Amino acid sequence: MNPREGSVQTFRAIDVIRKKRDGGELSGIEIESLVNAYTAGEIPDYQVSAWLMAVVLRGMTRAETATLTDAMLHSGEVLDLSSLSAKKVDKHSTGGVGDKTSLVLAPLAAAAGVAVPMISGRGLGHTGGTLDKLEAIPGFNVNLPVAQFRRVLETCGCAMIGQTAEIAPADRKLYALRDVTGTVESPYLICASIMSKKLAEGIDALVLDVKTGSGAFMKSEEDAAFLAELMVETGERMGKRVVALITDMDQPLGCMIGNALEVVEVIEVLRGEGPEDLRQLCLELAGWMLHLGGACDSVAAGKQKSEKLISSGKALDKFRQMVELQGGDPCVIDDPKKLPQAVHRVTFSSPTSGYLTSLKCEQIGTACVVLGGGRERKEDAVDPAVGIVLHKKVGDKILPGEPLATIHYNAETRAQLARKLLEDSFQIADSPAPEKRPLIHRVIGRA
Amino acid sequence: MNPREGSVQTFRAIDVIRKKRDGGELSGIEIESLVNAYTAGEIPDYQVSAWLMAVVLRGMTRAETATLTDAMLHSGEVLDLSSLSAKKVDKHSTGGVGDKTSLVLAPLAAAAGVAVPMISGRGLGHTGGTLDKLEAIPGFNVNLPVAQFRRVLETCGCAMIGQTAEIAPADRKLYALRDVTGTVESPYLICASIMSKKLAEGIDALVLDVKTGSGAFMKSEEDAAFLAELMVETGERMGKRVVALITDMDQPLGCMIGNALEVVEVIEVLRGEGPEDLRQLCLELAGWMLHLGGACDSVAAGKQKSEKLISSGKALDKFRQMVELQGGDPCVIDDPKKLPQAVHRVTFSSPTSGYLTSLKCEQIGTACVVLGGGRERKEDAVDPAVGIVLHKKVGDKILPGEPLATIHYNAETRAQLARKLLEDSFQIADSPAPEKRPLIHRVIGRA
Repeated sequence: MNPREGSVQTFRAIDVIRKKRDGGELSGIEIESLVNAYTAGEIPDYQVSAWLMAVVLRGMTRAETATLTDAMLHSGEVLDLSSLSAKKVDKHSTGGVGDKTSLVLAPLAAAAGVAVPMISGRGLGHTGGTLDKLEAIPGFNVNLPVAQFRRVLETCGCAMIGQTAEIAPADRKLYALRDVTGTVESPYLICASIMSKKLAEGIDALVLDVKTGSGAFMKSEEDAAFLAELMVETGERMGKRVVALITDMDQPLGCMIGNALEVVEVIEVLRGEGPEDLRQLCLELAGWMLHLGGACDSVAAGKQKSEKLISSGKALDKFRQMVELQGGDPCVIDDPKKLPQAVHRVTFSSPTSGYLTSLKCEQIGTACVVLGGGRERKEDAVDPAVGIVLHKKVGDKILPGEPLATIHYNAETRAQLARKLLEDSFQIADSPAPEKRPLIHRVIGRA
Repeated sequence: MNPREGSVQTFRAIDVIRKKRDGGELSGIEIESLVNAYTAGEIPDYQVSAWLMAVVLRGMTRAETATLTDAMLHSGEVLDLSSLSAKKVDKHSTGGVGDKTSLVLAPLAAAAGVAVPMISGRGLGHTGGTLDKLEAIPGFNVNLPVAQFRRVLETCGCAMIGQTAEIAPADRKLYALRDVTGTVESPYLICASIMSKKLAEGIDALVLDVKTGSGAFMKSEEDAAFLAELMVETGERMGKRVVALITDMDQPLGCMIGNALEVVEVIEVLRGEGPEDLRQLCLELAGWMLHLGGACDSVAAGKQKSEKLISSGKALDKFRQMVELQGGDPCVIDDPKKLPQAVHRVTFSSPTSGYLTSLKCEQIGTACVVLGGGRERKEDAVDPAVGIVLHKKVGDKILPGEPLATIHYNAETRAQLARKLLEDSFQIADSPAPEKRPLIHRVIGRA
């Protein structure tokens, strides 16, 4: 068809775009060539964005998804942590409101002898981010160079940092493009983005917490399960143990939302206290991490061991050690009042009696963003002190005048807007909702 | 959802991309904003290419297609030809192999008193282009400024030029992007591209020649009819008379392919000679142009009048006048040997007897490109002299040793490659094909 070119076979982005547009399955070479050429700046954004949109609307096979993940993974450095004798296990959540489990799980699993080399992200939109929460601890440095990350990991068994320039540069470039071209919402692209970054950590196993419900990225359980299965299969195709828990995000996890407030709740859980849903989810995820990390024969045994590590104070000690090694002030652990505090607080109460039948979860996340606790745009700064404390959770009985939530704020106008969003989030009815949503909807993958 | 921005409503390309991605119908304001912002360089190529791919895969409603056409039309100058008392009618073909009807139709309709302000394109891929054919006439200038185009039109009733910078700049920018992002193949985008340029000519009516068959852009009659209906409806929504003829492009039109050779065949038809299929199609299209242009009461009357204008020599005189007014050498009309001639000719003959059952039309077009008569890339130069003369057409009986085609060439290696393609294009069988494809498949639109 191109007689002037003779028989020389070269990669042409346009051919790959057309093939995907027409619903074809791309070969490994085609996907690798596209990812490598784009990372090297050899093909322009406008061709890749057309290809991304074709992927969003045409989908990918499992083989294509695994190849894409692999190509993105190998676009940069893959950590070699083979010098650590412990098994390396990480946990990843698809994001939600009040989800602070990472800060509990890293020290908890490390206390059990499992190594946790965790590379996390920042909050965007209505969801929070692990790095923002960690930075609420005065002095905590999430920007360690890889050599120092490795030293912290070797010393205390866990370390928590942000994305580095060396890890999966293809994902960074692709994600920035997806963000501005309406091509974020594809399970195949989400899977490749998450899995390429996580597998670049040099881990042996991965526990995925895929959220579903009104505050989750995937609102329906069906979509969440589809993404979960895709990630589990992709991980397994690449020789890793991967399980996914589909967990509830129809209301915030725990009671505190906002960076410093969430650290407070993390410390509570590590002390054996804290809200029941957060505590239960942490134990469940820890059980899986310990099991896949070879520290326990079963998930049940992993949960039991985790409870003991909490009650003995060993998990909290590990958290203190990690905070100190990453430059943070360990005094906050014994005296959480040393965390950033908002200047003002206002509590609002229920005008009626009844039962809390639901909480508009995404809207509560947005209320926290409005206070300054999250970001609408990547370049926004975050106020660590502000946030929301919920006094009631779904299913609770409510008496007239009982407090529903307390807003921690630094700016009056923001508080007013946040309060409107919050008040509107509480759905109170005469009788409780007929069915209670489970905390763990489903587990996908082999035990 | 974006509380920090307050209530100011501004156009965001990302919202339009997402809406189309999810299968929504875009409003007039959304489409206009996108086209205007892109033309002004206010939104980047990578957002528009993602949107284009979403359009390719999600489609558009008739209202969206008309709005897109209108926005592209008004992105630049719309010619005001109201000073001409004659009705302005143009013809557009979706392109094929050996399709030189424009060069016959413009002077023929002008001879009947209909004004033809024709703005045409160049050849790309296996199809030829009107401008390349005109430029085979020594001196012919297709790059007239608008003022001079208008003067030629006023003087002789027809004028033929290339796209100017002032006409539909949005289409030029969008087409360049579509070309490299695999987003050419959408009937909605093709419709908007064709109709915005044609309606910018300030015409009253338009006759569309939508090709179908192996040498056409739309291989199936169904696809051709879909595009034809879309263009007719879009034109009517914009207050113009538009009809579309679905015509055959399963074999080349006429016998000559190549720029100077096609001018020879144009002159033959204007002299009342030439191959029957080319002559018939010209009369049919002219019949419609004369009818829609108010020169005749019916298409049949328009055909009859066209035949008379040919036999009286008036159509050929009009062609001579236009050539002269646009700087071309009118001597070529009386002595076509003065057109560029290839140095070499080679004729190849049939090894067997039988019937020609089909011609691989696209491949014959590609053979002409290989000779240097067309372009693979926009920047390629074109050799006006080279080309192919077919001695047999589909349905013809063939005796052993009878000539099938003559190649006019300037480079031996090119001729060898072209010959292979050509020889392979002739499908000869013992008995003729059971069904003969009609020249005119269908007419879409009101008489």
